[in-house]
Amino acid sequence: MERIAVLGGGSWATALVKVLSENKADVSWWIRNQEDVQHLQQFGHNPRYLSGVRFDLNHVKPSTNLQETLAGADWVILAVPAAFVQTALKDLPLDAFKGKTLVSAVKGMIPRENLLITEYLEQKYHVPAEQQCVIAGPCHAEEVALEKQSYLTIGSLNLERAEQFCELLRNRYVKANPLDDIDGIEYCAVMKNIIALACGIAHGLNYGDNFQAVMVSNSMEEIERFLDALMPLHRDLTGSAYLGDLLVTAYSQFSRNRTFGNMIGRGYTVKSAQFEMNMVAEGYYAVQSIYEINKRLQVDMPITTAVYNILYEKISPAVEIEILKDKFK
Amino acid sequence: MERIAVLGGGSWATALVKVLSENKADVSWWIRNQEDVQHLQQFGHNPRYLSGVRFDLNHVKPSTNLQETLAGADWVILAVPAAFVQTALKDLPLDAFKGKTLVSAVKGMIPRENLLITEYLEQKYHVPAEQQCVIAGPCHAEEVALEKQSYLTIGSLNLERAEQFCELLRNRYVKANPLDDIDGIEYCAVMKNIIALACGIAHGLNYGDNFQAVMVSNSMEEIERFLDALMPLHRDLTGSAYLGDLLVTAYSQFSRNRTFGNMIGRGYTVKSAQFEMNMVAEGYYAVQSIYEINKRLQVDMPITTAVYNILYEKISPAVEIEILKDKFK
Repeated sequence: MERIAVLGGGSWATALVKVLSENKADVSWWIRNQEDVQHLQQFGHNPRYLSGVRFDLNHVKPSTNLQETLAGADWVILAVPAAFVQTALKDLPLDAFKGKTLVSAVKGMIPRENLLITEYLEQKYHVPAEQQCVIAGPCHAEEVALEKQSYLTIGSLNLERAEQFCELLRNRYVKANPLDDIDGIEYCAVMKNIIALACGIAHGLNYGDNFQAVMVSNSMEEIERFLDALMPLHRDLTGSAYLGDLLVTAYSQFSRNRTFGNMIGRGYTVKSAQFEMNMVAEGYYAVQSIYEINKRLQVDMPITTAVYNILYEKISPAVEIEILKDKFK
Repeated sequence: MERIAVLGGGSWATALVKVLSENKADVSWWIRNQEDVQHLQQFGHNPRYLSGVRFDLNHVKPSTNLQETLAGADWVILAVPAAFVQTALKDLPLDAFKGKTLVSAVKGMIPRENLLITEYLEQKYHVPAEQQCVIAGPCHAEEVALEKQSYLTIGSLNLERAEQFCELLRNRYVKANPLDDIDGIEYCAVMKNIIALACGIAHGLNYGDNFQAVMVSNSMEEIERFLDALMPLHRDLTGSAYLGDLLVTAYSQFSRNRTFGNMIGRGYTVKSAQFEMNMVAEGYYAVQSIYEINKRLQVDMPITTAVYNILYEKISPAVEIEILKDKFK
């Protein structure tokens, strides 16, 4: 019986707890909010996200105590927003993850430090690369909750470990495949949020589907240039962990990044859009990190540059998309 | 002053006449239907398609007389459905296109003969390859009519000719680029209709966005394998003429192929779906042609095979998508 700790109370964490616990793993589940944990313990479902999903409380143990949640777990799945990773883990001793395999389900980077989650875990908590995995792939949590056929890619330098985690996920409606390009899929998961944001901005400015298709095509080349400069590797970016993940985000009406971009395109300021949405889209932080990393690489990244200029330099969305328009092919 | 003949009265033909005539080319426009021509002559707009588009009748000459339409034209744009190309041209002498440059805007193949439009024009009317172009790229005609930013790719072995045609198209809302992979983009335009049909079938069977993203990712690999077997060439399939064109079709709610597939997925027979739609989706013919060409190539084409089996072998959509599901990654 595998023992798995899941950290985070959002929709993706909730979907992963569903999949893992249905496969008869014992899941200890850390959620920050006391009321949510009590609700889960009493009623067996998460009151905030995917609340139709019922949990078997013999296999799922919700708790607000992080150390208790981690105790005895062989696998730790990190599924909190990137901007909260540091805060969520701040009270842990630096050897908290010793002997455990860490799996990042976070699709973002540590803000300001511009580190991938796996890099941060290695630098701060000394989790070696061979004990780390990431979960990637085109996956709306809502569809996993509805048991619609989904595909996940588990990235790790340790393919044996990745395959073990795939086995924990596979079921009637989830297929999982291991892949060794862990950094590539992690960066791609980060960058897709920038592209979705850009698609939203263009939509907000009344550009249509023709333009969005060209935006997504051109973004694949931008992502490829960036990854090649950072870590040259023969990778097929049309795979579902890259292109698939981008598509499910860029073409989703429900993507927070697309919605946020749409408001920016319609003329909201960053502050008012964030206030209105009552949340921060991950792409907002991601674009700053990627833009700063690219200061060193100097890769041609027109979409990233446009989104950065709009969000951080207060340049008019109309002007930036006009510039993009001329660069696209 | 360039003289251009456009053949076809559908929405794509109408959008092209708009773009070309606004650039002050003289456009003679062949439409089969007498009433539509009269309406155009009297009111200056096409009664059936994009009827909001007004034409300057000093530059646009609608006619039901094909030979008259062709007389004196330097460029001939073929924009009728693939299944009607042979019928539309049947009364022409075999040297009808002598000295003219032919531009195919058809996204399909000659049914049963399994020929690309350019191959058919070369074989039957002896139009040499260097006098042929194709128009590709992600382009809803409706968005061109609304003057939304669009991108076209003009394929030709004769890049100079392609560039000349690009110049005839370019304006405030249309960008055009030449490309030499004429067969590649022509096949890709054909195959994208099969993929859109497959996406529709899966949607009709209640598969979700996660599955569609994986379908599109896997389809890119299927298209690549097919093109590589047919005519090896280093091509970047993430370009807008390939991936972009696929996206605008597969993610469009308005795509006839997706709608047709959706009905098949929901249990309609081919006949009843065609009757209900009052038209035949191009993917219906395309899948037969590609499937038959592949009998010789023997490339692994799971999506094409599934769609063929569903439409022509009457195998249950649920069974075929189940098989696909296990092949996808």
